[in-house]
Order: sequence, then structure tokens, then C-alpha cells
Amino acid sequence: MIKVGIVGATGYTGVELLRLLVTHPDVKIEIVTSRSESGRFVAELFPNLRGHLDIQYSKPDPAVLSACDAVFFATPNGTAMKMVPQLLRTGVKVIDLAADFRIKDKTEWEKWYGMAHACPELLEEAVYGLSEINRDAIKTAKLIANPGCYPTAVQLGFMPLIEHDLIDLSNLIADTKSGVSGAGRKATVDMLFCETQENFKAYGVDGHRHLPEIRQGLIAASGKALNLTFVPHLTPMIRGMYATLYAPLIKEGVDLQALFENYYKNAVFVDVMPQGAHPETRSVSGANVCRLAVHQPQNSKVVVVLSVIDNLMKGAAGQAVQNFNIMFGLDESAGLVYVPVLP
Amino acid sequence: MIKVGIVGATGYTGVELLRLLVTHPDVKIEIVTSRSESGRFVAELFPNLRGHLDIQYSKPDPAVLSACDAVFFATPNGTAMKMVPQLLRTGVKVIDLAADFRIKDKTEWEKWYGMAHACPELLEEAVYGLSEINRDAIKTAKLIANPGCYPTAVQLGFMPLIEHDLIDLSNLIADTKSGVSGAGRKATVDMLFCETQENFKAYGVDGHRHLPEIRQGLIAASGKALNLTFVPHLTPMIRGMYATLYAPLIKEGVDLQALFENYYKNAVFVDVMPQGAHPETRSVSGANVCRLAVHQPQNSKVVVVLSVIDNLMKGAAGQAVQNFNIMFGLDESAGLVYVPVLP
Amino acid sequence: MIKVGIVGATGYTGVELLRLLVTHPDVKIEIVTSRSESGRFVAELFPNLRGHLDIQYSKPDPAVLSACDAVFFATPNGTAMKMVPQLLRTGVKVIDLAADFRIKDKTEWEKWYGMAHACPELLEEAVYGLSEINRDAIKTAKLIANPGCYPTAVQLGFMPLIEHDLIDLSNLIADTKSGVSGAGRKATVDMLFCETQENFKAYGVDGHRHLPEIRQGLIAASGKALNLTFVPHLTPMIRGMYATLYAPLIKEGVDLQALFENYYKNAVFVDVMPQGAHPETRSVSGANVCRLAVHQPQNSKVVVVLSVIDNLMKGAAGQAVQNFNIMFGLDESAGLVYVPVLP
Amino acid sequence: MIKVGIVGATGYTGVELLRLLVTHPDVKIEIVTSRSESGRFVAELFPNLRGHLDIQYSKPDPAVLSACDAVFFATPNGTAMKMVPQLLRTGVKVIDLAADFRIKDKTEWEKWYGMAHACPELLEEAVYGLSEINRDAIKTAKLIANPGCYPTAVQLGFMPLIEHDLIDLSNLIADTKSGVSGAGRKATVDMLFCETQENFKAYGVDGHRHLPEIRQGLIAASGKALNLTFVPHLTPMIRGMYATLYAPLIKEGVDLQALFENYYKNAVFVDVMPQGAHPETRSVSGANVCRLAVHQPQNSKVVVVLSVIDNLMKGAAGQAVQNFNIMFGLDESAGLVYVPVLP
Repeated sequence: MIKVGIVGATGYTGVELLRLLVTHPDVKIEIVTSRSESGRFVAELFPNLRGHLDIQYSKPDPAVLSACDAVFFATPNGTAMKMVPQLLRTGVKVIDLAADFRIKDKTEWEKWYGMAHACPELLEEAVYGLSEINRDAIKTAKLIANPGCYPTAVQLGFMPLIEHDLIDLSNLIADTKSGVSGAGRKATVDMLFCETQENFKAYGVDGHRHLPEIRQGLIAASGKALNLTFVPHLTPMIRGMYATLYAPLIKEGVDLQALFENYYKNAVFVDVMPQGAHPETRSVSGANVCRLAVHQPQNSKVVVVLSVIDNLMKGAAGQAVQNFNIMFGLDESAGLVYVPVLP
Repeated sequence: MIKVGIVGATGYTGVELLRLLVTHPDVKIEIVTSRSESGRFVAELFPNLRGHLDIQYSKPDPAVLSACDAVFFATPNGTAMKMVPQLLRTGVKVIDLAADFRIKDKTEWEKWYGMAHACPELLEEAVYGLSEINRDAIKTAKLIANPGCYPTAVQLGFMPLIEHDLIDLSNLIADTKSGVSGAGRKATVDMLFCETQENFKAYGVDGHRHLPEIRQGLIAASGKALNLTFVPHLTPMIRGMYATLYAPLIKEGVDLQALFENYYKNAVFVDVMPQGAHPETRSVSGANVCRLAVHQPQNSKVVVVLSVIDNLMKGAAGQAVQNFNIMFGLDESAGLVYVPVLP
Repeated sequence: MIKVGIVGATGYTGVELLRLLVTHPDVKIEIVTSRSESGRFVAELFPNLRGHLDIQYSKPDPAVLSACDAVFFATPNGTAMKMVPQLLRTGVKVIDLAADFRIKDKTEWEKWYGMAHACPELLEEAVYGLSEINRDAIKTAKLIANPGCYPTAVQLGFMPLIEHDLIDLSNLIADTKSGVSGAGRKATVDMLFCETQENFKAYGVDGHRHLPEIRQGLIAASGKALNLTFVPHLTPMIRGMYATLYAPLIKEGVDLQALFENYYKNAVFVDVMPQGAHPETRSVSGANVCRLAVHQPQNSKVVVVLSVIDNLMKGAAGQAVQNFNIMFGLDESAGLVYVPVLP
Repeated sequence: MIKVGIVGATGYTGVELLRLLVTHPDVKIEIVTSRSESGRFVAELFPNLRGHLDIQYSKPDPAVLSACDAVFFATPNGTAMKMVPQLLRTGVKVIDLAADFRIKDKTEWEKWYGMAHACPELLEEAVYGLSEINRDAIKTAKLIANPGCYPTAVQLGFMPLIEHDLIDLSNLIADTKSGVSGAGRKATVDMLFCETQENFKAYGVDGHRHLPEIRQGLIAASGKALNLTFVPHLTPMIRGMYATLYAPLIKEGVDLQALFENYYKNAVFVDVMPQGAHPETRSVSGANVCRLAVHQPQNSKVVVVLSVIDNLMKGAAGQAVQNFNIMFGLDESAGLVYVPVLP
């Protein structure tokens, strides 16, 4: 059994990670930490875990964490970077579900996250854990920067088009919609039920932290400059993320359906849906899947890609476990064989 | 008092129209018709009307309808066109909330609506009731084609840019999201609670009936050909419509905020929000308002317009009453002074 | 025009009160106070008020408040009691939407609310504003204790049975369900969207502050001791309150339907529905109505009363305005003629 | 592997059953039938099954069904009874998720279900599949009547009290609340999103089909006559069922907490929560669990039991698989080790 620690598991990515790890066939959970909830049973905070996880939160203990084979960070941004260097030195493999290691450029990171980076020397070494795109690097990685939810949905949708040089990179549009769980489990007026139910809105139109992350990934794939307009929206549901992607086609006569199917033919967690399909978020709820459909409406020269994930799964905890599996040489889907819950 | 009849008031635009008309200071409801519910009290079907409307559904009676000053059609597409010619001949003014008279081109209409048009000779005469854009024509109209919900939100958002020739018409994108009430009150599996709650999806990507309607309006304003990609989505809420509009700017240095404020300075039901604002659907819930915000994210050359309405109000019944007010020389906001319900 | 001040209008009862007062034909809003939001435009916090209320929050100013004819308190419990004595001395009429004056017994109040009462001498003078039950006292009242939401729904349902001595008071059961807005607009994890959506739960089973308030009202009506089991539940919707009331009948052969209809025949805001009806919360959404139905299932000796209100309207702001109307000799429904919003 | 057929898997209990069976370690799905969807891939109707179940609906074929070891009926009431006798004759074990075999008394069944029973001779033989209560009989059963959702939640809550003779049976009250999925996947106006969202209501107060089923179970346990008032409500969520149970205590000084814990000490799928707890429906979402809490509010003589299940799991498909496991001598939790999905 692989010994695992989870740091900061009091939020939604944390409880989702625990949901997956408690039944993972190759994992033994050694420690679950929280400074604020130390001493409390995890299942008291998250009653879904009653009967599945009989462990108390403890304060993060370097000794116990260092004895783990792998440590997941489900902490707020800026926390992992303070503990990771030490853990790596003791040989622990680390998967950070927050943003600390997602941006390669320290200056860019500090601009968007509003703080100094505590270990910029690790930014280069960290492997960006978009599993389908970076599988080989993940296999040997010691430190995974698990991607953001929007970046996962958007990049997986654009990748086949970009890598085949089919679209005009000067006008990419990602109109994205997220369930409320993406905002985390923090006490804020904005995320109260009565502020979000029966309501739909854009936010962060003038700049969102996931923009540089997506841009970095798309530039890495294309090798070229590009202009991306990224507009996130909040939609009144708990889970689910929808990306509607637009780009002008610069080549004609390409069979886009075949191209997508071929691109993802070895990706067990990416499902290219049949021609003409409209994926829906509930079709991935609770599972580590990205479903894609590619359209060319009215035969215009604009391609539209529809990309859906569960933001807590393929957009966070699910992909983290997928990366964990790849890092430890397990079957990529170990502990991840979930049929989405519908309805 | 202006005598009013409502044909087919068993759906959501119908009950919303009744909500507005029963307290309209200048209106007397003479007849509410429904073939299927004839004889039943309206307030039995819609309990919110208990104590406000003591009338039974009756079968549409030409004699009674002809004695009205105005008749609203809240019927399925294809119904109004069979009764309107006769009503117009008797001097009744007609407002059709369905799509029968929205498209000027008979062939185009028949292609998208899949039936022969019963009175194509009226298509030219009908005035497209986008109140803010066609106010003068509405004043003297006898037949109003009340706009669709998506077309209202999208056109009001694009108009200031188009009329000032600021955007590249070859690549307009309207990413739109609707609450479920837009689908009407029909018994279908697709609109069941368990099919739509906790779910988000695009639909009709390859072609939606509101596309030609929007295109017609934008072409009329621009006088030029254009390419519009229109993607509607369904979002799990009852009311509300959000349009996120994208277009490449072709002029620099224009103060877009001032332009929008000026364009709508006399429009009591269009609210241009302050610079940087993100309108939300709940801020218009139950009221006849369109709120707009204009952004230029990251100072790129892509302009983003956010446009929100209540699909049953400014997107249907509210705008119908607004048009009614204009037609009958009433104050444009008579019977429409509602503060949106929040939360 | 009656000059009105609202103290503490940053929560949901506050914004609902403003929604009603800005279009009330006899009201002029003089001042809206908030210590935390002082200086901010009210419509910035509550965008539904844009275009309807052009006023800034100010710190509560005794001079301005004393110049009002009436002051509403939409503050947390324990706030009004500190300011009310002074206001009453200057002749201002006060309506407190919080709980400060609801319980006549100082000791009982202090036990349930966990603080010392600042002006117990006013407890007797305050009139409990359950409009239909205490209309005469309200007419001459200077200080109204506006009832809680649960107490309104429960008392209106039980009253006809209790005043006619039809039920066994030793085993009254009130199983009640509330929308989330009843919890107010406070930043707490418990009321986040992701904690309350797709979830149903009882809370406060062992004791809820509305229990003594209901008990006091029912005892006042019956003149006898009684035992009430009161279980509140949270249901995933914004507005709406449902009380399902159970009591053993002690008299046979009474026409309960006629009894209820007669009891409320002069109550414009209580709607006794037809025999066999099942009221639903949406049928009162946004309106100041209580709808009731009385059942005797399977002809057993247990009577079941179903009682629905909008917790923010008849359960708070609507009833406050109704009481205001009664106090100032206005038509009881002045400014309250709203058709519920459905769907 | 145990060969399994599912008849009528086009509804919500059907898809839930498939979700469980496709990953059940001991099951091979041989046939999934639907007359209306015959020929269509199951995963086309239920996209959550894409990649997990590569089978088409077929018309029910007696030959194929007879070759199964077990057949589940997820059909409307009245369907199973026409096919079951033949299947039993060929040695197939049957689990009916509908109501055909739940009521022992033919006359009672016919009264509530409004049709003649096709095989009343099997009513006695059928074992009522409330797993925790009838485990021994289930082990050897050939035909299981899988309980209704309300009956499961209500009976599990009352059982410890009834079997220990602690409550006055003349006044039992079950106030129950269901998510909308309990109404099934049928095209009806009543279950549309816009009719059920932001709405709460009681229904069937004067008589619901689950009343006789619950009564039968409680009478079997108590051996006495009893009076049960059963009021179901519809709450705006997809999954989840809440039963709030009330009964007058007739014995004093009993440690109810210990009693419940002891009663269910061997039940892996019933969780008696700690003293004072308030279970919530989301804590069982997607899992085959019933969570219970027992309260005695204000030390009165009324006991309140809170009982929650996922209506599609412990209230339908989950319990069906649990019964299947018991019938086939498997571990009772085979294929049922799911951590509830939260949030």
C-alpha cells in the first residue's frame, strides 16, 4: 500500500480527494491535516465519510508527512510552497491541487497571485499535471502542479486544433461556466445560497487567474503567441464546468470529428462524443471524465468546441488521483472507476 | 379602460402577461382563451392569480375578441397567423408573443419553423417590437411581432456597437444562457426537474430559430452582411437570460462606456451599468429591464458585452406590455413599475 | 407622504422592505442606515433597486430618525431595543422586524436570546404584529413586534382550531420547512450554496427561538397550557415557508372547511383554499399572503393544516408594511398589491 | 459471474440500478429491456453510462430472461406481475422494484393501485425486501418485493420503538419529504423544472399508496392495530428523502440512543448518528445508507426520529442490490461500497 497524507482537507477538493482515496485499492491514508480542525474527526465535518474514514484531523506534522510516499496539498494558494521543498528533500512525492506551481514564470505568478513565491527554484521542476498532455513527464515527476478546473476544460478542448495548426490564434474565445463548488468552502456572502441560486453571472471578465495558466499551456502547445479572451461565469449548480470554445478555422476540409477522436484515442478519461452531440455536465458528475464535442455551426468558418468536466473531479481531485496513479506506475484508472451519478 | 383579450394563456409567457395585466391601471381583461382548459378558472391553473383574476378560460370567440381593443397571443408558433388577419380587419390591435411575424422573409420563416405561413402578406406590415429600437414604428403599428428572448438580449447588446460601426461583422459571437422557463410549460422529459437541475448544457449549436431573427435585426441596423455564431445554453434556474457577446473592435480609442450610456439615455428599461460591472440575472428578475455592461478585457481588441434580461419579462410578457403602452399612447412604463425580486 | 426610516437594511428582510416601500404610494423614504455600509449607495449593494432608490446608507442619525413618522428596524436581534426607547419618546412609531419585543416574559426572552434585555419596560406595551389576530391593538400601537416567519405560518394555521376549542392541546405538532433566506445574509459556511443545495435537513429539533413565540401566541388564544413539538427544516429554495400542522381532534362533525373560511373571511391576506387543496410555496412568492388548507386524512381523528407563506413577505417585510398600513389608518393593502411571481 | 437481466430500465431507478450493476464484481449484465427504446444503446439515453455499458435495449425476450440467474424489474406498477410467474417457473430469481408484490392483501392492493392483480397467488410467497428487518427470509426468497422509498425511511425509523413497545400506536405521524426523482422519468407538467424548483408542497395528504405499505410493515412488527398519519411533501432537489417521525412515548426513562444503536448494531447500511445529531440528505447521496437520529425535544413525551435515505439508493436500486447480494449469498455490501458524494 502506498502511504498517503493530505494537507488541508477541509474544503471541497479535500473532501472529494478523501472520497476517492478511502476506496483506492492501493492507498493507505496516513494523515489528514488541518490547523483549524485539528483533533476533530474528519467524518464529523464531512458526514458522507462516516463509516469510511475513522481518522482525526491533526496539525501538519513534518515527521508523519515525511514518512508518507505521497502528499496531496488541498490547501489555499500560497500554502504548499512553504512546505514542499522540505518534503521533496525527504523523498516524498507531492501533488499540489492549488496554484503554487502552475505558472512557470515567477513574475507572472506573483502578479496574478499577489504574493512573493516561496520557492521559485521549483517552478521549472514542477510538472504541470494535465494528464493526457504531459503523461510522460508525470511518470517521473516528483512535484505535480495539478491544473485548475477552467484550464483543464479549456486546454483539453483546444489542444487537438492547436497541435494540428487549424485555428487563428489571434482570436480564441473561451466562454466558461462553473458550478459554485469551484469557489470553495469559505464563508463569504457572495457564495451564499441566496446569492447564487436562481442567478447567473459573469465575473472576472477583466482578468482571472486561470487566464495566464491557460495561455501558458496553449502557447507551449502551439509555440506561438496568441490572444485568448477568457470569460468565466457562475451557474447555479454545485458541480460541473462547461467550456464553450470558439476559434476561426484557417484550414478547410479537415474532418474535425476524426481528428478529435484520433487525438484522444488512448485517453481513457477523455470521451469524444459522436458528431452533433451536446455534452452535459451531469453526464460527468462524480467521475473523472472530460467529454468533448466539436461543431462547425451553419458551416461557417468558426469552430465551436464543447468541453465538460466535473470541476471537483477531472478539474481537481480526480485528476490529482489520475496523476498519482501515473507517478506510481499504477493503472491510470486505479480507484477512479466511477460511473457518473445521473440524475 | 382598454379592453384586452389574451389568446392561449396556459403557458409561462401567458401567466406572466396576466400577472402584469391584472394590475395594469389602464387595462380591463375581457377574455382569456384556451381550447384545452376552457371552462376552468384561470386561478385554478395558476394559483398565484387567486384573488386577482376571477375569470374562466373560454374557447377563442371571434365576437368577443373583436370587441377588444387589443389582443395578445401567447400561443405556440403557428397559431396566431391563423386568427390575426380577421382580427386586424375588425380594427383590433394585435401583439403576438410567438414567432409568427418575426421574420420578414417568408421562405426563411418557413425553413426555420417547418410550416407554411398562413398570411405572408402581413409579414411586411408587422412591426418588430424591439421597443427601444423601433419605438416610432411601434406607435402606429397594428400588429406587433414581439421579439424572442435571445434576440432581445443579443440585439440590445450589439446595437450600439453596430450602429457606430465599431466591430468586425464577420466574426460576431453570442454565447447565451437561458433559464428553463424559456422552454415553456410543455410536458417533455427534457425539461423535467431531474433532467435540468444540477446540469448545464449547450443545445441547438448547429442552428436555432432565434439565429435568423437576430441576424435580420443586426443586418437591418448595419446594412451589411455579417457572420454570427450563436450558441444557446440551458442553465438550471427558472428565469433569467444571459448573453455574453464577443466582437473584434475595428476602431481604437472609442469610449465604449460613454457610447453605451448615450445610446440608451432615453431608454427607461435599458440600464447601462457602471464601468467594470458584471450584471447578474437576479437583478432583473420579475422586471422589464435589460442591464448591460461593456468590457474590453486585458485591453485586447475584443469587446465583450454582457446583457441580462428576465426572459419572461423583457424577453416576452414585459416587452409585450411595453409595446402595448407605446401603441396606445400610454406612459411607456404604465403597469410595469416593478422592482426586481431579490433574493 | 409618511416619512419613513429603515435601520439596518443590509439583509434580506431589509432589501425586501425597500422593494415594497419604494413603490408604496404613501411613503417617502428619508433614511436608510447601516454602520458597515455607510456612504455606499443602497443600489450598489442591491442591484435590483437601481433606478428605484437613489440614496446612500448613512450611519443611524437620531436627529434624522426622530424626524421620521415611522422607523422600521431590520437589524439583528438585540439592536432595536437599544434605540427604540429614545425614538418612541420623540413620537416616532416603530416596527421591529427582529425579535426584541416578541416575547412578553423578560426571563423567557433572555433565556432564548442569550442577552439581557435593554428595555424590558416596553415588552408589555409592544403589540405583537400578527395582523389578522391583533388588528385592533395594532391600530393604536406605537411599537410593533413584527412576528417571526415560523410563528406567522404556524399560528395562522392553528388559530381557527384553537379559538373554537377543537383540538387536544397536549399534542400539537408543527413540522415546518423554510427556504434558505430565513437564515439571513450572513457569511457562514452553513448557508453556502454548496452546503444547502440538493440537501434537506431538520435543525434545532431540541429547541428553536420561535418555539416560545409560537407557544405564547397559542396560549394567549386558548387560555390554556399546551404542548407543542416544533421541528424546523431547511429546504433548498430561496423563499418560501411551509408549515404542516397536526393535532388530535376532540370534537366530531365540525365542518372544518367552513370554519376556516369563516374565521378568515375579512382577512385580505389569508386565503383559505378549497377543500382538498394542497397549497404550494410558489403560489405566494413575492406577495404578502398566507394560503391555508385543512385536511382530515383517511377520516382519522387527526386534523392536518397546511400553511404557506413567503418568509420574507407575510413572514417579515410584507407583514411589517401591512402593520404599518394599519397603524397609519391606510388601506391595509396599500403598497402590497402584488401578484405572486410564478414560475 | 451471476447473469442478470433488467426489465424496463429507462427510468431513474433503472439507470441507478445499471450504475451499480456495471461495476458489481459478481454480476454480468445479460440483457436490458425496453419496449419503447428497443434497439437504442443504453448509453445514448443515459450518457453517464458511456464507456461502462456497451449494450442495446432489446424487447423483453423470455428465452434470454429465463437464462438469467436474476431479473430486476424497474418497470411501472402492474408490469412485473404479468411476467414474474413464468420467470419463477424457470428458476430465475426476481426482484421487483415496483409495487406489484408489496401488499399482502390482494383487495387492499387493488384498491390502492386501481387494477386487478395478475398473480395474487404469489403475494404470500413474495418476501418484502426491507433488508435489515427481513434478512433471513430474503436469503431464501425467490421473489422480492423491493420496498418503496417512503416505506423504507419510515419503517427503519419507527422499528426500534415499535418492537420495544415504547410508543402510543394510536397517533403515529410521518411527515416525509422527497426529492423529485421519486416521481420518475415521465413527461408530466407537474414535474417540470419550472413547476418544482423554488417550490415546496405537500401532496396526497388524503391518501398515498405508500400508506398501506407502511401500515402493513408496522402492524407486522407490533402485532397491533395502529393509526398512522402520513403526509408526503415534494422538495426541490433531485435525490434525497427525509422522514420526520413523531410518536407519544408510553414508557419513561428508556435510553433511546442506546436502544437505536443496539437495534441496528449489525446493520452495515443503517447508521445511528450520535445523540443530538441532525442527519442531512446529502450525507447519503449516491449511497445505500439510512442515517437515523432520535430526539426527545424539550424533554416532552413526544419522541422525534429523523430518518434520511437517498430515495434512488436505499429507497430503490441500492436496496435492490443489497437484497440481491443476500439472496445469492454474497457479501451484503458487494458492489455497494460507495462513499456518498458531497457536496
